Amino acid sequence: MLCPMKTKIRLFVDHPLAEAQSVPLGWDQAHYLFSVMRKSEGDYVALFNGKNGEWIAKIDVAEKKQGVVRCLEMTKPQQYPPDIWLMFAPIKKARTDFIVEKATELGAARIMPLQTDFTNSERIKRDRLQNHAIEAAEQCGGTFVPEVTDMNQLEKLLSDWPEGRFLLFCDESKVGERVGIQDLPTGKWAILLGPEGGFSEKERKYMQAMQNSFSISLGPRILRTDTAAVAALTLWQNALGDWA
Amino acid sequence: MLCPMKTKIRLFVDHPLAEAQSVPLGWDQAHYLFSVMRKSEGDYVALFNGKNGEWIAKIDVAEKKQGVVRCLEMTKPQQYPPDIWLMFAPIKKARTDFIVEKATELGAARIMPLQTDFTNSERIKRDRLQNHAIEAAEQCGGTFVPEVTDMNQLEKLLSDWPEGRFLLFCDESKVGERVGIQDLPTGKWAILLGPEGGFSEKERKYMQAMQNSFSISLGPRILRTDTAAVAALTLWQNALGDWA
Repeated sequence: MLCPMKTKIRLFVDHPLAEAQSVPLGWDQAHYLFSVMRKSEGDYVALFNGKNGEWIAKIDVAEKKQGVVRCLEMTKPQQYPPDIWLMFAPIKKARTDFIVEKATELGAARIMPLQTDFTNSERIKRDRLQNHAIEAAEQCGGTFVPEVTDMNQLEKLLSDWPEGRFLLFCDESKVGERVGIQDLPTGKWAILLGPEGGFSEKERKYMQAMQNSFSISLGPRILRTDTAAVAALTLWQNALGDWA
Repeated sequence: MLCPMKTKIRLFVDHPLAEAQSVPLGWDQAHYLFSVMRKSEGDYVALFNGKNGEWIAKIDVAEKKQGVVRCLEMTKPQQYPPDIWLMFAPIKKARTDFIVEKATELGAARIMPLQTDFTNSERIKRDRLQNHAIEAAEQCGGTFVPEVTDMNQLEKLLSDWPEGRFLLFCDESKVGERVGIQDLPTGKWAILLGPEGGFSEKERKYMQAMQNSFSISLGPRILRTDTAAVAALTLWQNALGDWA
């Protein structure tokens, strides 16, 4: 009924969304919307907050450093991805950014950077990576933004592993039972990508003692971590996730 | 027998490789090997040329602007990827580079940039992209480098489509018969990624008239072209290629 025009601008806002709800915009988004994209009062924009679906909203106030938009109607119901975590040891900045962007597009529920014995990068900028996930969600038309967690210690994470969550290894180490992706059980999962230097002997022993862990082949060529992340999420979504 | 040390440097050379074969190195590779990587006479390096497998070679001459290495023995037989082409409309430079890198890692046989009615980028630097494929092959341990072709006109390409090669569409257009990846026939294939602006009506009609064309779902979220390239190649390799 409303808004026959198709807006292509989608903004993530940290604010409840509901019919007739007014939503204030901060400096960044006002700048982007009014100065960069040249939108003004009366124009439309799509909003989502990761919880209340996507809404078409009308710009009520368009000022240089702030704005107010008002929700008109829901254009997409809230959709959550399957319960799949992506855990990886951060690599070079651009490739880590890339993993976060791709994991968001491909529908990971949670993105977890890992500190392992052979991880080179010991720090991450969580906020920066979270913003990457938000931008990717804005771009890909999703209504959900995966949480990017702080750096986790691999050993600590594994020693406190949640019961009932399966673990999928993707590295050369062949930790876990080697299977075809189509033979894996459905349920809650986490994909774990080894660091470029591989796992340490200690980590490997730890993992071998774990139950519910599986490994799959990602082919005869050596994949970079970022390629492996996309490939593993793709296979998982196609076999066990929401691509079916 | 020879060379117990594991060399990690792999160089692509445009030269025949065989036992005791001497291979001259040009300026770039001599600079990389001797100045950047600090290798010198007597050290080892791995060579491949895309045809004769991988060879361990000994550095006989290490000069500032040139070098000579000599093949000792084959360390990997030549391996060709399955007969799968990746065709895509180029996007932003970094993302086009990325597609070439990932397609090489994932085992595409041929990489074909496409000019479509709605392609933004009308020119590519073929040599630059080919070098990206070479670097990716050096990195991923493969013995094959996919050819990056010059820009192809989509219509021309389709009007002269090779008999017996299947076509897999990955876009929202639902051109082709919609199937699960596991139901596709084995054989020669080409993956075609639509441009970000979609296909034109004319192109769509053309494609609908084609035989042997299929389309698969890449899930409920909109994927960027680069993500779709990796996802489609992954699914194809896993179902019909050499990942089984």
